[in-house]
Amino acid sequence: MPLKPNIPDPKSEARRVGFALVGIGKLTAEELIPAARTSEDAYVAALVTGEEDKGEAFARAFDLTEEDVFTYDEFEKLADREDVEAVYIVLPNSLHREYVERAAKMGKHVLCEKPLGVNADDAQAMVDACQKAGVKLMTAYRCQYTPHHWAAREAVQSGKLGDVKVLDSVHVQVEDDPTVWRLKMDYAGGGPLPDIGIYSLNILRFVLGQEPEWVFAHQHQPKGDPRFKEVEESLSFMLGFPDGVMANALTSYDAFKTTTLRVMGNKGSLLMDPAFPYQGVKLTISDEEGETSPTFAPYDQFGLEFDHFAQCIRQDREPWTPGEEGVQDHVIMDAIYESARTGQVVKLPKPRKKLDAFRGAKPRLPGKK
Amino acid sequence: MPLKPNIPDPKSEARRVGFALVGIGKLTAEELIPAARTSEDAYVAALVTGEEDKGEAFARAFDLTEEDVFTYDEFEKLADREDVEAVYIVLPNSLHREYVERAAKMGKHVLCEKPLGVNADDAQAMVDACQKAGVKLMTAYRCQYTPHHWAAREAVQSGKLGDVKVLDSVHVQVEDDPTVWRLKMDYAGGGPLPDIGIYSLNILRFVLGQEPEWVFAHQHQPKGDPRFKEVEESLSFMLGFPDGVMANALTSYDAFKTTTLRVMGNKGSLLMDPAFPYQGVKLTISDEEGETSPTFAPYDQFGLEFDHFAQCIRQDREPWTPGEEGVQDHVIMDAIYESARTGQVVKLPKPRKKLDAFRGAKPRLPGKK
Amino acid sequence: MPLKPNIPDPKSEARRVGFALVGIGKLTAEELIPAARTSEDAYVAALVTGEEDKGEAFARAFDLTEEDVFTYDEFEKLADREDVEAVYIVLPNSLHREYVERAAKMGKHVLCEKPLGVNADDAQAMVDACQKAGVKLMTAYRCQYTPHHWAAREAVQSGKLGDVKVLDSVHVQVEDDPTVWRLKMDYAGGGPLPDIGIYSLNILRFVLGQEPEWVFAHQHQPKGDPRFKEVEESLSFMLGFPDGVMANALTSYDAFKTTTLRVMGNKGSLLMDPAFPYQGVKLTISDEEGETSPTFAPYDQFGLEFDHFAQCIRQDREPWTPGEEGVQDHVIMDAIYESARTGQVVKLPKPRKKLDAFRGAKPRLPGKK
Amino acid sequence: MPLKPNIPDPKSEARRVGFALVGIGKLTAEELIPAARTSEDAYVAALVTGEEDKGEAFARAFDLTEEDVFTYDEFEKLADREDVEAVYIVLPNSLHREYVERAAKMGKHVLCEKPLGVNADDAQAMVDACQKAGVKLMTAYRCQYTPHHWAAREAVQSGKLGDVKVLDSVHVQVEDDPTVWRLKMDYAGGGPLPDIGIYSLNILRFVLGQEPEWVFAHQHQPKGDPRFKEVEESLSFMLGFPDGVMANALTSYDAFKTTTLRVMGNKGSLLMDPAFPYQGVKLTISDEEGETSPTFAPYDQFGLEFDHFAQCIRQDREPWTPGEEGVQDHVIMDAIYESARTGQVVKLPKPRKKLDAFRGAKPRLPGKK
Repeated sequence: MPLKPNIPDPKSEARRVGFALVGIGKLTAEELIPAARTSEDAYVAALVTGEEDKGEAFARAFDLTEEDVFTYDEFEKLADREDVEAVYIVLPNSLHREYVERAAKMGKHVLCEKPLGVNADDAQAMVDACQKAGVKLMTAYRCQYTPHHWAAREAVQSGKLGDVKVLDSVHVQVEDDPTVWRLKMDYAGGGPLPDIGIYSLNILRFVLGQEPEWVFAHQHQPKGDPRFKEVEESLSFMLGFPDGVMANALTSYDAFKTTTLRVMGNKGSLLMDPAFPYQGVKLTISDEEGETSPTFAPYDQFGLEFDHFAQCIRQDREPWTPGEEGVQDHVIMDAIYESARTGQVVKLPKPRKKLDAFRGAKPRLPGKK
Repeated sequence: MPLKPNIPDPKSEARRVGFALVGIGKLTAEELIPAARTSEDAYVAALVTGEEDKGEAFARAFDLTEEDVFTYDEFEKLADREDVEAVYIVLPNSLHREYVERAAKMGKHVLCEKPLGVNADDAQAMVDACQKAGVKLMTAYRCQYTPHHWAAREAVQSGKLGDVKVLDSVHVQVEDDPTVWRLKMDYAGGGPLPDIGIYSLNILRFVLGQEPEWVFAHQHQPKGDPRFKEVEESLSFMLGFPDGVMANALTSYDAFKTTTLRVMGNKGSLLMDPAFPYQGVKLTISDEEGETSPTFAPYDQFGLEFDHFAQCIRQDREPWTPGEEGVQDHVIMDAIYESARTGQVVKLPKPRKKLDAFRGAKPRLPGKK
Repeated sequence: MPLKPNIPDPKSEARRVGFALVGIGKLTAEELIPAARTSEDAYVAALVTGEEDKGEAFARAFDLTEEDVFTYDEFEKLADREDVEAVYIVLPNSLHREYVERAAKMGKHVLCEKPLGVNADDAQAMVDACQKAGVKLMTAYRCQYTPHHWAAREAVQSGKLGDVKVLDSVHVQVEDDPTVWRLKMDYAGGGPLPDIGIYSLNILRFVLGQEPEWVFAHQHQPKGDPRFKEVEESLSFMLGFPDGVMANALTSYDAFKTTTLRVMGNKGSLLMDPAFPYQGVKLTISDEEGETSPTFAPYDQFGLEFDHFAQCIRQDREPWTPGEEGVQDHVIMDAIYESARTGQVVKLPKPRKKLDAFRGAKPRLPGKK
Repeated sequence: MPLKPNIPDPKSEARRVGFALVGIGKLTAEELIPAARTSEDAYVAALVTGEEDKGEAFARAFDLTEEDVFTYDEFEKLADREDVEAVYIVLPNSLHREYVERAAKMGKHVLCEKPLGVNADDAQAMVDACQKAGVKLMTAYRCQYTPHHWAAREAVQSGKLGDVKVLDSVHVQVEDDPTVWRLKMDYAGGGPLPDIGIYSLNILRFVLGQEPEWVFAHQHQPKGDPRFKEVEESLSFMLGFPDGVMANALTSYDAFKTTTLRVMGNKGSLLMDPAFPYQGVKLTISDEEGETSPTFAPYDQFGLEFDHFAQCIRQDREPWTPGEEGVQDHVIMDAIYESARTGQVVKLPKPRKKLDAFRGAKPRLPGKK
């Protein structure tokens, strides 16, 4: 009787979409490369890094050759690599635009880490560049691709919670190291808001399918803390959605790791706690009947992202979270910062249409457990 | 071998403080009278009600005689009842002031349900009346008397959570019946804010021991819903505390019952969920070491209130939550409503001193389980 | 606008069934009397106690007169009290039989605390006495009357869990006082088994609706501990049900309070934890879809018992847990003790019919929340 | 400012211990190889498989060359591979002995999956072979190497729970496929007991540090189910430990996935639920003060195993779970099956000494989070 190994039998690389990963940091090493290995639709075809030695070590470790490693200066050499159909930008925020534009010029599709840029104008320029070049642009909002977050959205939009009235989200953590680029305004474009607060903002919009009409915000930037010379330490924001629906959110770089989402309707409520980890998201839906926590077959959030974008490329569809979705969060974050600066409510422009105004083709979700 | 019954052996009534309960509603019937029965320091000596029949039925049911039942018109007859040393006002908010003043005139100490009045001026008048009459006034903030809420405060103030940065609280529920007095501005002085949102406000202040410096708020009052002709349906408010600490809160009369408090510091966090029920409060403290949920011997929140006020009377001490504490919540709620009306941040007056500015003698907590 | 008190408006006493409570201990004072006060179908009409003073204090406290208090010697005087239609026996186990028989002779229906007697013969004699006298006998198994335990039973019997294969239950607590009657063999008939282990045994049988075919047990009775001179400290038992279904159970008087039930089928499982408290029972049902915890409107377990027995008396039906149900637990506990003594598996007699062999009319459950 | 990638910088391979993985199934592919990649003390130097194609595919995928892949027939060629200091046997149970003996003859140290063999004699032969050859043998009991299980053991052995009285463990799951080798007696040596019930047995022994004195067991093997023609479907066992401590356990191949451990002492209790998953073990310790759930920095259970065995090799120490530990579980499982067959209690031989009778050098635990 033979052993029965359960090794994934991926599509041949010819049918899968080859990605160049641009930037080799912790996220690339610990999440993206492992995720790509198990993707049915994508694979890592090349690495782009500033440190050639590290790139080669990675290549050896992850089954690539030295020919697959490029320095930032050699980025344009990817143009000749037909197997590289897309790039995944995993660089500091302020570099996104440059590399998105360079990739678009080469005709490569682009998956770009969140936040899309450093402000709305910056992000819009990326959308424009990709549109002009006829390549697809997707903002890497992993939480819009998981069965847990879709189940939350379904609970909201199906009416299971009744009419939604108020929402609440927290995403805070401690950033200890004053030297990281995330604390430099030129690199990051802001503090915790564009890095982690953006999850609250993005998922509040996602579960409602609607856009806020106004914001109010207040931020705190303590004097004398070397970490917060340039960016805010903590920020609280309030969002006004259509029909009087209100949402509160908190983000901070100096508070014990907490990630939650709570949606309260007049028939029931839902809680995600934790709401945004790579693994271990927990959803609980409560109503008069009791509490329910759905479970799903194990999934890799980054693998689901890779799969969706690769499928959109193969099937020529607009991604669920295209560049426009990334721009819209920047429009709102710009308004949040303006409100924090002026102490005034800031009105937001009306979006084009009612639901999911900035989103594309729905992703295919993995099956139930 | 005898059976061992475990019947409380209360102090003789001579040593306990006799209360007249003013107003016989659900709270009086289901919570206050049972609580008083097990109190070591207090007992129910009289009932005041508008419906004499009901009062007499209650008297029969709860071990009093017809002589112990008074109509509202007969309220002043309590002056001759030496056994009635205190009154507990359990009437619609707008009637608090009248009955507090009438009680003070008779020289009776007053325990008054929250909110103390319908606005800060109204509440301050009660404080003044009691001061002038030389009687004690306590605002019935039950959550400031439980071991759970004190353990939360201790976690905050001991530094166990590190420096507190952001806080969050929710108190929402569905009010179905458009005819209740709680939805009439003249009786209630507001909607969910003074009824249930006040818990968030009050406990945020209690765990920090500090006072907010400014507020921002937004409210929703839907057109066409007969319940919300006079008062708000939902209200979101943001509080700015000293040193840049920020707190968000949500309250609503049309959202599935939820009561939470979350405090996040840079070393740890705490969650109360549910935070404000009569029974079943759950506290969880999290830090790098893990999660801890303290348990306590069973207690009756209303019994603890009765005990504290009775002890303050016997020992001539200021209650932990005197009238001033109730006034301060009104000052802030007035500012919240002003902000909601004007769309502007509203600054609050600086309180007199640093910690627990409006509080009196610390209550004695029940022992560990 | 009038206040809207929410006082229960019980049926007139004429239609309710009057009970005499026999034995005034902690259970009577803290649970039974409060429960009876809110029952729609029952009320306390008399008290029987060994200590006349205490009885009279209780009478005063609970709205009865001195005429409603009887000593054990005066028990037969209840015969003349037409308003006393039933007695509730809350005495040490070894006294149950005497008082059941004396009550039956007077033509009073009997609700008797668990365990019904001190062994199967003792319990059977009670059944026989009541049958002969034409009065009803109900064993007070409160957990067979709650919506939580019925929801567990429904999950098992509806096939929601698939075929049930294995079950597990724990009921342990610390008994500190070596002088209590529960530790005396003559009064109690055993140690933790008939007092708390009986919950595991009884609820395992209840959720399955079936009877065990064999038992194996092992007990521990430490030398030198004054508490366990006469009865076991801890006891483990295994039950074999039809179709190979197996259940494990643990009971102890020297282990930290734990009460659980776990039922595992091939499609899902359920957990009750805690399983047997007066308040706060929690049920969680798990399957491939996730976890569900039903909630129910608040209920009083003892009130539900009172109601059921009173309804059975009014409608002349057999109670859901008649004397026979109590006898059957004794038959099994006798076998458990025999197994513990001999170290051998003990076979049990086949019951008369398939499901719910020893049970009567289904109780009416309170509504959903 | 450079990116700060956080790539592990492992010891050079010269200092790490090279392992040959023998058998390429799901465990090897999904757990062992990823674990070895992040180990500081071990690495995968070779693969042994029956299917050369698969081996080569794996080699390519995991950074090895074709020269690193061996068929079972070529196993002895590892003798010449000095970089292969140890083998990890991941074969069906009945093949463990042959490969352990062949490895020992080559002078390779052996890490062997649980159960060590198919019965006590089989397992003892492996211990003897390794002893004779002067190589180390470790049984791969991953749960004896995690911070969670050590925290549970510490709670038990430190007296935090008081005197432990009763324990309870469940490990059940559904095995759907009638063709797997785990359901064939010749390959597996039993059913769920040696595969998953062994976790309960092993961890009960581990947390107590003591050995059972007797066992009782009952098993169910349904007629007509093609899965259970050779092995039991479900098995319940009871263990008697010194001083009257009793433990119950359930195992099954036809019950919804459940893995728990509960330990109850007279001062507190602990619950692990789930107790045995690769990830997400949860420990809760309860006592009069409340509940505490410790958290730990993320760890890889298989990585901890690799590390410990590699360290034992480098430092010439006896592993914490040597072959003897694996034999002892077989001695007890043999007795469990004998009890299930005979229906009698089976006494076990007294172990050599008091605590941790079959264990070696304590493992180094990873730090707190």
